[in-house]
Amino acid sequence: MHIDAINPLLEIFSQGEEITRGQIADTNAAWLSQQAVQIGFTVTRHTAVGDKLDDLVALLQEIAQRADCCLCTGGLGPTSDDLTAEAVAKAFNLPLVLDDIAFAQIKQFYANRNRIMPETNAKQALLPQGAERLDNALGTAPGFALKYQGCWFAFMPGVPSEMKQMYLEKLLPNFPQRFTLRPGRLVTLKTIGMGESAIQQVIDAISIPSEVQLGFRAAEDVQIKLLFPCAYPEKALQTLVDAVVNGLKDCVYAIDGLGEETGDLVATIGQLMTAGRHSLAVLETVSQGLLAAKCIGSEWLVSGLYEQSLRRLKQQFGIADDVDDLVAIAKTIAQKIQQQQDVDFALVQLYAEDHHALYDKDKSIAVHSVLLAGDHCYPMVHSIAGSIQRKQKQAAVMSLDVLRRYLLNAPR
Amino acid sequence: MHIDAINPLLEIFSQGEEITRGQIADTNAAWLSQQAVQIGFTVTRHTAVGDKLDDLVALLQEIAQRADCCLCTGGLGPTSDDLTAEAVAKAFNLPLVLDDIAFAQIKQFYANRNRIMPETNAKQALLPQGAERLDNALGTAPGFALKYQGCWFAFMPGVPSEMKQMYLEKLLPNFPQRFTLRPGRLVTLKTIGMGESAIQQVIDAISIPSEVQLGFRAAEDVQIKLLFPCAYPEKALQTLVDAVVNGLKDCVYAIDGLGEETGDLVATIGQLMTAGRHSLAVLETVSQGLLAAKCIGSEWLVSGLYEQSLRRLKQQFGIADDVDDLVAIAKTIAQKIQQQQDVDFALVQLYAEDHHALYDKDKSIAVHSVLLAGDHCYPMVHSIAGSIQRKQKQAAVMSLDVLRRYLLNAPR
Repeated sequence: MHIDAINPLLEIFSQGEEITRGQIADTNAAWLSQQAVQIGFTVTRHTAVGDKLDDLVALLQEIAQRADCCLCTGGLGPTSDDLTAEAVAKAFNLPLVLDDIAFAQIKQFYANRNRIMPETNAKQALLPQGAERLDNALGTAPGFALKYQGCWFAFMPGVPSEMKQMYLEKLLPNFPQRFTLRPGRLVTLKTIGMGESAIQQVIDAISIPSEVQLGFRAAEDVQIKLLFPCAYPEKALQTLVDAVVNGLKDCVYAIDGLGEETGDLVATIGQLMTAGRHSLAVLETVSQGLLAAKCIGSEWLVSGLYEQSLRRLKQQFGIADDVDDLVAIAKTIAQKIQQQQDVDFALVQLYAEDHHALYDKDKSIAVHSVLLAGDHCYPMVHSIAGSIQRKQKQAAVMSLDVLRRYLLNAPR
Repeated sequence: MHIDAINPLLEIFSQGEEITRGQIADTNAAWLSQQAVQIGFTVTRHTAVGDKLDDLVALLQEIAQRADCCLCTGGLGPTSDDLTAEAVAKAFNLPLVLDDIAFAQIKQFYANRNRIMPETNAKQALLPQGAERLDNALGTAPGFALKYQGCWFAFMPGVPSEMKQMYLEKLLPNFPQRFTLRPGRLVTLKTIGMGESAIQQVIDAISIPSEVQLGFRAAEDVQIKLLFPCAYPEKALQTLVDAVVNGLKDCVYAIDGLGEETGDLVATIGQLMTAGRHSLAVLETVSQGLLAAKCIGSEWLVSGLYEQSLRRLKQQFGIADDVDDLVAIAKTIAQKIQQQQDVDFALVQLYAEDHHALYDKDKSIAVHSVLLAGDHCYPMVHSIAGSIQRKQKQAAVMSLDVLRRYLLNAPR
């Protein structure tokens, strides 16, 4: 591919027996590769090795011969199987020296938690001579970076949250100074409410030029990724994105890569809720607290309720036991919650209690979500299949999406 | 290390741009590694490369020098970027020859589906001369295996279902004839309530024989892994595990590898709750629904409540606004929940509402968990730091752990 001829070569190196032994999949490598490709690197290789010093040393020396940049994760912890700094010292013939600032930071980390720094943590402040320290905002292990021969190495913690924070804050802003990068442009359409095959059919009806790479990522939402080569005409890009969005309609909840970056579904909802100064209370059944949990840090969610039994729910909200219209029940509950909790919106999730179907991954259940906004009711029903864990996740997201669709179309 | 001297060395090699570009995490590598470790291989390295012929050739030659066995996935498909057979031919200087049986199988695959075999698929029947064909029961691409210098290579499809089927049916049964395998024994201690460094100090005080491999994995819990070599004396194994457990005391919530496998913290609690036919209702603040969400599928959790504001909580439970002893407030709420919900146990989580500290990753908050069981109250306080997401997760786990510790010590 033309793009490879000009892009610097990058390798990913992961350290840890938990990876080579297969206890965890190497999601750090996948995340870092996506990031690196986006900004214009060509990722040529991923390598994972365990906790053997000689393997680590050999690998570092190999990579230094092959790549322009190497992003490394793992092995920076306080325990005896954390060998990265030692391996770097040996591979590149650099002594380890105590970094006073790193040492102070580690002590401070413990002081902030009213704990005494265990002696073993001191070794985390030993960095190869001449390395640039990469501060760890979330944990004790600082990272570090250094150039050896033609390759610039960055060593980061293996804990995904710490690694991501370090990459985004400490590495990403400095790449343009170190490398000549001609990134393609990635546009990501984040959708909710349409399955992957239905999306594929929509896409198939649009002719995507061969130089635009198409990718999918399906998790709780489905993301459609369009990677445009460097210097692709802006107008043609916009036309293609518009065509895809038109096909997917209001299933698209956010688009990355056209300007400001967006967050997840809750972030999209949060912006609308905050702008309208709305407040919300929820009742969950299938999602069992996960909907509220997803809204962590959101001031607009004032309270949540989970109840296992529909019968007990009816009792609690003074509904006669023989009422069995789920939408009517949800509406009554929503009204009482709205009143009791003094909120603008009440979102109630119910399902026809069928434990057999709930636990059976081959059976689907119908989940009703009723949003009460002011004195208007917005009911939706979703059919959800899969394991009970998948049903939980999907129910949380689908009920939240009822709120998003209301906010999107609500009069401002 | 002693164990390595007797275990054959195995590497995992994955081919595909979708892996090097980070579009998918390499779960095949994790799965195959777990399988290989279980039967007695030492997995030394994972490598993933993309669709460049020269990279593939170089990598195959490297691995042939280093490993006794290499399990490879991907690159067997019909398209132009599927280069594995070609790379093997080039790396090991073997011509590609048409395998008649493979060719017939591919044609049959299409015939069974009333489709005509696309011409591009014929190339899937070209195997390196002398290779053993590995039939693919689920797809069109046959795998193949061959020995080059000291290393036995097996090439499998990248589609996980086809790869797994091929490994289990075609490779696993034949390993004992090809390799001398002496599987070790892995004992995993799952702990909660003690940090990684504190655990390291406990372990340091115990003399772990050098032939026992020690590993850690820290996520919401901290797992200590002890890998004993094959034929390690049972009594010595038990003595060592007991010594570690004694050091960690009731922080150990489950042990894998001594008999039946255990689950996570909720599974451990679930066994005790189900055995005692107990029921629980919870009130969450910091964990915001996540505690309830973690208990998905647990009949013993009958209801949950989340409330953002302490002031509103007091109102709701008829507590005077000037009461500010959190444990006293929690106790009163627990009693009312126990009564209203008609449950054996009520678990109440509160914190001194300090939004500044909650949102600040450098500040810690004190989370109070009060368990009311019968008419006895068990309060515990945990200091939790980190991002609001980490505080949420830790609060959920720490409050649940109060319940586990009660159940562990409760009169049966």
